[in-house]
Amino acid sequence: MNYAGISHYADQRDCFFLENGKLRIRLSTGKGDISAIYLHTRDKYIPVEKYDTRNCCEMKRYASDFGHDYYMADIDIMERPGTENSGNPETLCLRYFFELIDSAGARIWFGDSRFFSCEPWGVESMFDCPLLSRREDIFFIPSWAKNAVVYQIFPTRFATTEDIPDEVWYQEPIDWKADLKGNLKGIINHLDHIKGMGVDVIYMTPIFKSDSSHKYDTIDYYTVDPSLGTAEDLHQLIDKAHELNMRVMLDGVFNHTATDFFAFKDVIEKGRESKYWDWYYMDSMPIDYGTADRKPSYQSFAYHGGMPKLNISNPEVADYVLEVAKYYIKDFGIDGWRLDVGDEIGHDFWRRFRKEIKAINPEALIVGEVWHYAPDFLQGDQWDSVMNYAFFKSVSSMICDNSLRPSEFMAEQGFLLGQYHSAVIPVLWNLIDSHDTSRFLYRAGGDKRKLRLAAAMEMLLPGTPFLYYGDEVGLTGAEDPDNRRGMIWDENRQDKELYAWYQRLTYFRHMIHAITEGSYSYTESDNMKNLLSYHLTSGEILIFHTQDKEASVMEYAGFKDLLSDSEFGGTLSGYQCVLLIKN
Amino acid sequence: MNYAGISHYADQRDCFFLENGKLRIRLSTGKGDISAIYLHTRDKYIPVEKYDTRNCCEMKRYASDFGHDYYMADIDIMERPGTENSGNPETLCLRYFFELIDSAGARIWFGDSRFFSCEPWGVESMFDCPLLSRREDIFFIPSWAKNAVVYQIFPTRFATTEDIPDEVWYQEPIDWKADLKGNLKGIINHLDHIKGMGVDVIYMTPIFKSDSSHKYDTIDYYTVDPSLGTAEDLHQLIDKAHELNMRVMLDGVFNHTATDFFAFKDVIEKGRESKYWDWYYMDSMPIDYGTADRKPSYQSFAYHGGMPKLNISNPEVADYVLEVAKYYIKDFGIDGWRLDVGDEIGHDFWRRFRKEIKAINPEALIVGEVWHYAPDFLQGDQWDSVMNYAFFKSVSSMICDNSLRPSEFMAEQGFLLGQYHSAVIPVLWNLIDSHDTSRFLYRAGGDKRKLRLAAAMEMLLPGTPFLYYGDEVGLTGAEDPDNRRGMIWDENRQDKELYAWYQRLTYFRHMIHAITEGSYSYTESDNMKNLLSYHLTSGEILIFHTQDKEASVMEYAGFKDLLSDSEFGGTLSGYQCVLLIKN
Repeated sequence: MNYAGISHYADQRDCFFLENGKLRIRLSTGKGDISAIYLHTRDKYIPVEKYDTRNCCEMKRYASDFGHDYYMADIDIMERPGTENSGNPETLCLRYFFELIDSAGARIWFGDSRFFSCEPWGVESMFDCPLLSRREDIFFIPSWAKNAVVYQIFPTRFATTEDIPDEVWYQEPIDWKADLKGNLKGIINHLDHIKGMGVDVIYMTPIFKSDSSHKYDTIDYYTVDPSLGTAEDLHQLIDKAHELNMRVMLDGVFNHTATDFFAFKDVIEKGRESKYWDWYYMDSMPIDYGTADRKPSYQSFAYHGGMPKLNISNPEVADYVLEVAKYYIKDFGIDGWRLDVGDEIGHDFWRRFRKEIKAINPEALIVGEVWHYAPDFLQGDQWDSVMNYAFFKSVSSMICDNSLRPSEFMAEQGFLLGQYHSAVIPVLWNLIDSHDTSRFLYRAGGDKRKLRLAAAMEMLLPGTPFLYYGDEVGLTGAEDPDNRRGMIWDENRQDKELYAWYQRLTYFRHMIHAITEGSYSYTESDNMKNLLSYHLTSGEILIFHTQDKEASVMEYAGFKDLLSDSEFGGTLSGYQCVLLIKN
Repeated sequence: MNYAGISHYADQRDCFFLENGKLRIRLSTGKGDISAIYLHTRDKYIPVEKYDTRNCCEMKRYASDFGHDYYMADIDIMERPGTENSGNPETLCLRYFFELIDSAGARIWFGDSRFFSCEPWGVESMFDCPLLSRREDIFFIPSWAKNAVVYQIFPTRFATTEDIPDEVWYQEPIDWKADLKGNLKGIINHLDHIKGMGVDVIYMTPIFKSDSSHKYDTIDYYTVDPSLGTAEDLHQLIDKAHELNMRVMLDGVFNHTATDFFAFKDVIEKGRESKYWDWYYMDSMPIDYGTADRKPSYQSFAYHGGMPKLNISNPEVADYVLEVAKYYIKDFGIDGWRLDVGDEIGHDFWRRFRKEIKAINPEALIVGEVWHYAPDFLQGDQWDSVMNYAFFKSVSSMICDNSLRPSEFMAEQGFLLGQYHSAVIPVLWNLIDSHDTSRFLYRAGGDKRKLRLAAAMEMLLPGTPFLYYGDEVGLTGAEDPDNRRGMIWDENRQDKELYAWYQRLTYFRHMIHAITEGSYSYTESDNMKNLLSYHLTSGEILIFHTQDKEASVMEYAGFKDLLSDSEFGGTLSGYQCVLLIKN
């Protein structure tokens, strides 16, 4: 038995209540090592001799990655009988251990972080789960977020009500400083385009007063940037989106400000005498904004002199930022925040952030930006989700770079499924590009079959599809700033077939619950044929073909492909995706 | 390579700053699988082409358990040159990956939760550590706690100033209801006994108003139980202990109260109309206190009707309890709290508890009671330490039950060393018994050689020795209540040799820093000879002999044994422990 692979933490990581009231217990093992696992439970305080609360259930494998299989069991908390007329039926504490049988038939018992050669029913030898305190820790995520499609807008480049000549709007590649005069009214005028694609959530990159086109260097959190419009426009945009049953999320850039932010200006002016000196991580005076080769004389985002880092461990700064965050929830009715550079701010602040935001609106969604695997932000006390760059990397590696095989793709997805808290899986923002990456279509060398395939993976695999504006009509672009070109509104330039593809994908995503839930009877990958297959519990079969040459799956000939609305001949063309159902 | 065993979380669990300013990065691997690991680092934001911040160091193995080897590296954060006259020299974010070479020579690279077949210098492929936010998360533990010896007192049975006949005081076994009239003045009168043994911290089980002898059912948190004395006595005890350079910690029973606590009395009286209804988890009225076979009509500790569970998720209750906790820190100058049933109260409360207590006295120590492996309470934001029942179990299994071999003992210790945050290792309260277990001497069948050995393991292995009153003079006793017998003060009944042994152990513990630090050049276990050997970096060799028959280690004949202050002949007698140094 591979002891190195067996791991379980008897706390929020691997033992937590679900919103449905069941207790989920998870265990990981070495890949392929184990043939069966049983979870044995009992009440902590009632002696077994007095009343036998022992119970047992088989655990099921729910994911696998490169090195591990992941198992889980969902259990109802047993009741102690004889309490009909009095007494709280709940068990206070659960104790449990695992019984593992490997493929050779060897059997071992795994109790409180130790292995045993027989059933460890003694209370000190078992894992321990105090149920009341765990109930307080239930990870609640707004239900609207669980089957939503998100659409990202870069407001200065999305749509405008000003007169902009086509040669400015459609310039390729676009210049850093290009001013396309995008504005909120422009977005309002195109809500039908967005809604028409089946989008549920609009997320806009920053819109507050700032001199840059990206506006990640905020001058005033309380003012909509005049080039984008007014507070009234923002109200209108949110209200109209809500009328269309879409949510609106803003970008919370709380890690840093612009140098023109009032507090930093005060520091520039008064130096150490400024009452805002401790709002930043100042090093020395006079201010040195740094150069390409010299760091600024203060901590700043990515050493950019123009983005001094706020010291959020200073409670005054935390208070200030929280007031901003709450103001837009309360006064504008926004539906949540995407948190820029979320991982460069500490856990302590995010715990407070969640408490204060959810106290105002429990339905607000909190999504952190972090590019790496980040379970510690996703335990139920900080964020609801993250921008899932792991998905971005896997899809890109497999489809654009051809450096990841289908089985490896499944293993990378399996790692997230296996390790992340179950509550976050449906709301992970699965992206294939964003304002911070080149466009997928660009990385795909302009091959729209690849884009269609990647879009289908976003839409039809577990997680929240996150669409970057323009992808749906064939907009391309290299790295920043070229990935932020003007949106294609000229119907002659739009790829309407692509738009229809996105429509079709959102339709089936919303229709078939097993897709959202990632509910499969089984999944398989085929590295020879370059196929990923997901057999949904609702009966459909989802197949992604990740290479150019044809692939034959004759066993499905005659099935109906819902995505093309036609009979499937049994052969997948290059980069085709099908959603099959028996005719 | 055993991929199942390779694990690293790029957050507080495995990547954290130490108090000395170094960043510690840890990695676990399958046991015996790996021959060398290199940690490769770079700055996140500075392109390598522009300025090469890349660095590399070899990691060292610091612990092993049944299935894993644990590796770590402590690194200084590199500086970016050219910042002499301006600019903050600190790196903001570190990126890193691991290079692992297995025993067959195979090499793999481990980046952001994925494996690579070449060095993954691309920024998205590396682990990511934002340094500023991690600095905020440094786990600070009061330095006084790091080389302290703790002595647990059960106040109603420790010492009295009343006249109690010997046949009452020394009754065996002791009765549940026995009233020995122990009091605080009695403790004050015996501080010399405690101090004389080299104790640094006195921890008393609860002393607040309560009708039981154990006082874990509190009637009034603001009153010292009259049978124990007065607030003035408590002040005196604390002040005198401080004069002797000893600290005093109290037992915080915040999970539940007595039924005579004012809030519960109000609920009994007024039912749902009581403003304290939500201070508890009430089920139905009228109140049913339950019986041995029927649960009470409210949640209670271990279903004991006499201990209704407080609802600390109610902010009013949390406020109340925190006021109590702060009162004794502020007004009495106690040095910390031991938290009863700590794991049955949620993380959220304990985070607030730490913040508010440490704001008053950053030197206060917070130790939770939890019987199982509990890393999530020990990340720096909740408790400083726990009562280390894992140590209790390992020592007991090995020495009393003969069910654990030396190599297994080392593996169990290795699990804690490998997995717990490094900061907590020196302050884990290593116990061999307590008021909640039978006495070690009882479990050892009265064999004092075993007790001497176990005491030496507490004192000379990493962690904080936690001594239960009376062990040091040969007090024995079976399970509760017999483990709470009157302390032996009659000199004719005291085992003075044993007391001298404890004195000797604390002496060397305080003298030799490598003991406290667990600083070894190497360690080894020998299951044939039943030996555990620890070679201290300061030159001493610590050997525990865990069986009755003799064991020969002739290679050390002629060394000096510091513990017996004599030349070592090369043969260990049954259950002997020696601390050898070359003559």
